Amino acid sequence: MADIVATLQRELGDCVCTRPEVLAAHRRDSWVLSELFDLEGRPAPLPGAVVEARSTEHVSRTLALCRKAGAPVVPFGGGSGVCGAIVVPEGAVVLSTRRLDGLRDLDAESLTATFGAGTNGMEAERAVEKQGLTMGHWPQSIELSTVGGWVATRAAGQFSTAYGNIEDLLLDLEVVLPDGSVLRTRRTPRASAGPDLRQLFLGSEGTLGVITEVTLSLRRQPQARRGQAFSFENLESGIEPIRRLMHAGWRPPVVRLYDAAETSRLFPEICPEGRALLILLHEGPTGAVDAQAAGVAAICGECGGEEVEDSVVDTWLETRNHVPSFRALLERGLILDTIEVASTWNRVAELYRNATESLRAVPGILIASAHSSHSYQSGTNLYITFVARPEKPEDRAEIYRECWRRTMEVALAVGAGISHHHGIGRVRRDVLSGEVGETGVALLRAVKRALDPDGLLNPGALLPE
Amino acid sequence: MADIVATLQRELGDCVCTRPEVLAAHRRDSWVLSELFDLEGRPAPLPGAVVEARSTEHVSRTLALCRKAGAPVVPFGGGSGVCGAIVVPEGAVVLSTRRLDGLRDLDAESLTATFGAGTNGMEAERAVEKQGLTMGHWPQSIELSTVGGWVATRAAGQFSTAYGNIEDLLLDLEVVLPDGSVLRTRRTPRASAGPDLRQLFLGSEGTLGVITEVTLSLRRQPQARRGQAFSFENLESGIEPIRRLMHAGWRPPVVRLYDAAETSRLFPEICPEGRALLILLHEGPTGAVDAQAAGVAAICGECGGEEVEDSVVDTWLETRNHVPSFRALLERGLILDTIEVASTWNRVAELYRNATESLRAVPGILIASAHSSHSYQSGTNLYITFVARPEKPEDRAEIYRECWRRTMEVALAVGAGISHHHGIGRVRRDVLSGEVGETGVALLRAVKRALDPDGLLNPGALLPE
Repeated sequence: MADIVATLQRELGDCVCTRPEVLAAHRRDSWVLSELFDLEGRPAPLPGAVVEARSTEHVSRTLALCRKAGAPVVPFGGGSGVCGAIVVPEGAVVLSTRRLDGLRDLDAESLTATFGAGTNGMEAERAVEKQGLTMGHWPQSIELSTVGGWVATRAAGQFSTAYGNIEDLLLDLEVVLPDGSVLRTRRTPRASAGPDLRQLFLGSEGTLGVITEVTLSLRRQPQARRGQAFSFENLESGIEPIRRLMHAGWRPPVVRLYDAAETSRLFPEICPEGRALLILLHEGPTGAVDAQAAGVAAICGECGGEEVEDSVVDTWLETRNHVPSFRALLERGLILDTIEVASTWNRVAELYRNATESLRAVPGILIASAHSSHSYQSGTNLYITFVARPEKPEDRAEIYRECWRRTMEVALAVGAGISHHHGIGRVRRDVLSGEVGETGVALLRAVKRALDPDGLLNPGALLPE
Repeated sequence: MADIVATLQRELGDCVCTRPEVLAAHRRDSWVLSELFDLEGRPAPLPGAVVEARSTEHVSRTLALCRKAGAPVVPFGGGSGVCGAIVVPEGAVVLSTRRLDGLRDLDAESLTATFGAGTNGMEAERAVEKQGLTMGHWPQSIELSTVGGWVATRAAGQFSTAYGNIEDLLLDLEVVLPDGSVLRTRRTPRASAGPDLRQLFLGSEGTLGVITEVTLSLRRQPQARRGQAFSFENLESGIEPIRRLMHAGWRPPVVRLYDAAETSRLFPEICPEGRALLILLHEGPTGAVDAQAAGVAAICGECGGEEVEDSVVDTWLETRNHVPSFRALLERGLILDTIEVASTWNRVAELYRNATESLRAVPGILIASAHSSHSYQSGTNLYITFVARPEKPEDRAEIYRECWRRTMEVALAVGAGISHHHGIGRVRRDVLSGEVGETGVALLRAVKRALDPDGLLNPGALLPE
């Protein structure tokens, strides 16, 4: 590994960093199990070097040199992933996109913006906001994650029910393939020109190429915006009005239903105790917002919803990205995570009941709750939270795995999707065959071998070992 | 080739057909150049056999046997493609999905329908219509094409501006890979579970696998429906209100703008002579339809639109799938085709002007016109029609190629996408590198080799020779 570091330093000069604190900061992403291992004094190994590429050409040369040397390379964006897609092999080369940043082009007529892949999410939003525009993409990680990382992980945003997820906003991209060649997709609103090549990299988690530039489709800041909230007997009875409003053709950007446990934890004293809270945000031309709010209110009323003071929507908007640090919770002896799954409407209630019930049987469990936050014509997601405090803190990794094992088992048993938007990484790789079948895994491996025959790009992520 | 036919007959019995009229009907799709060659007495060669598979297992066995024998296989749906994706190599095996038909499952709670891939489009729509549902997918070919063919060609429907194209409606699919293994994707509303494997087959044009089953996301029949029409000075000035209404957040399912030539040809005496006609159809809950119609009328007014009697929308709805047969026109000495391209808003006017101007310089040209029929946040398509009558009928193939060459050259020069929804087939394969770059073509070839190392699935389609 020392050889490749020396080669990179010779070829790429001061893009190559080997300072211990920089190496340490690029060992892993924000997976809670990696955080736990740090705390337990068994941290992920150090990379050999971090290449902070300043151009597509730098990325291309790095990949070509690593291929020649047989050295593993781990692409690195914001490091905010939570599934362990990044746990760097000892001495590997980390290829950071951090300096491939900034707004490179804005087409105010077509409403498109082109960013360096390493652009921080919030900086990207601020750059287009100045022109009265918005990406309409609000992942909770927006202050930490990068535009390229959104593509590599198939990210979802909080406003997705109207505006779609990253695959719906992505117009074109530039990707450097493992052999150093550069793929540039066409900037066209829609194409029937063979398989959509962008899709190979959406969700590839750094295993098939390094995304260097991303063009997104923007929207104007809405003319009107209006919040609404209702309470329901429980999560199951709150799912029905969401299904109905989606099928009626309404599309509020935000549709979030919290089960009773999350409602009382997150919005105490707002909702009658023990009920599930549904919050909605409508956006668009004034006439459309008014018609939609009236239509949604009628549906919620028919389904037993009671109106709740709509200031709760403002509260949510202000606090939506405040999350406690994993570290602080781990230091209190807890183990926890969130697991997002998705289901067609006919199985959502069963998925919710079976998953929370199964989690409640885990020793030391304190919380097993869920909310729905991204709805579609055919179904919705469930964002499940578990928190446990095992008697012995050293059992936490085991308890963590047990919670995941149970939730994945329930998801597969009811026919749900194993991941809505966090990705596969290492935490789900052994159940990927449940999602896409053995044939799907074999197909992914065949594509991987075709692009990266030596398996050098982000080894250990996505595909089962 | 005789060997593989005998083997298939032994293994698959009466699924294998060698009747001359069946072989003749499966030589090619509806590409106008194939039609011309028929007329000129130089028809495409005959396949060796047509396998009418009745199960996924039949498809799997056919592909495995053909791989073993090294025999080329051409998947065949409705045969309504217009780009020459199907021109069967002499003696090849045609694998028809025609008997893999019918509605197999309908989930009235999640609004999903599962069809055998060979189900005729209109039969599929009728099957869900009985339940008060609709696919919302109306390709002009709906009476001829199959559900699996829509996926294989990345089809678009006339209502796409609100409801999306086939990739937006597709929930899950079953595909038999070239080695006979069966891929079944997960029925989940959205996933972040690695690259979306469905996308390898959307637009694959029979080169990567045989689609055997398709599940689509449905919608309820709308509560209200309302037509609207406006005229504008010309196509360019009618593009602006479409851009504005899309950016305001309105989404009428149908937004069609015809240039002056098409307006007077298709809707004589409805629109003031020499003007471009915009027709819109709104669908949804009554309140939403009213708000949208008012919003759109205001935008059209601001952009110089003059209201046109909305009965023209009913006329269009009734006649929208009436197209003259290529054969009849060819018999009159004409040569013609439609070429759909797509562009971001900033280049639509230039694309229109340059393409129609360039076509008008072709000897014998009678018509070079266009309409826009599928709009997006970032741009729209142009559906270009050309008709020519060369002095010598035997020059028609050459004139045809010249019209295509010019239009593709203009599209690439202005940065537009070379195909909106008809696909690549043979007519565009040599310009595919203009769309996805040499790297994109190399990537497609690598994927093709990984799945179909001997190049047996639909050779000659999609990829440059």
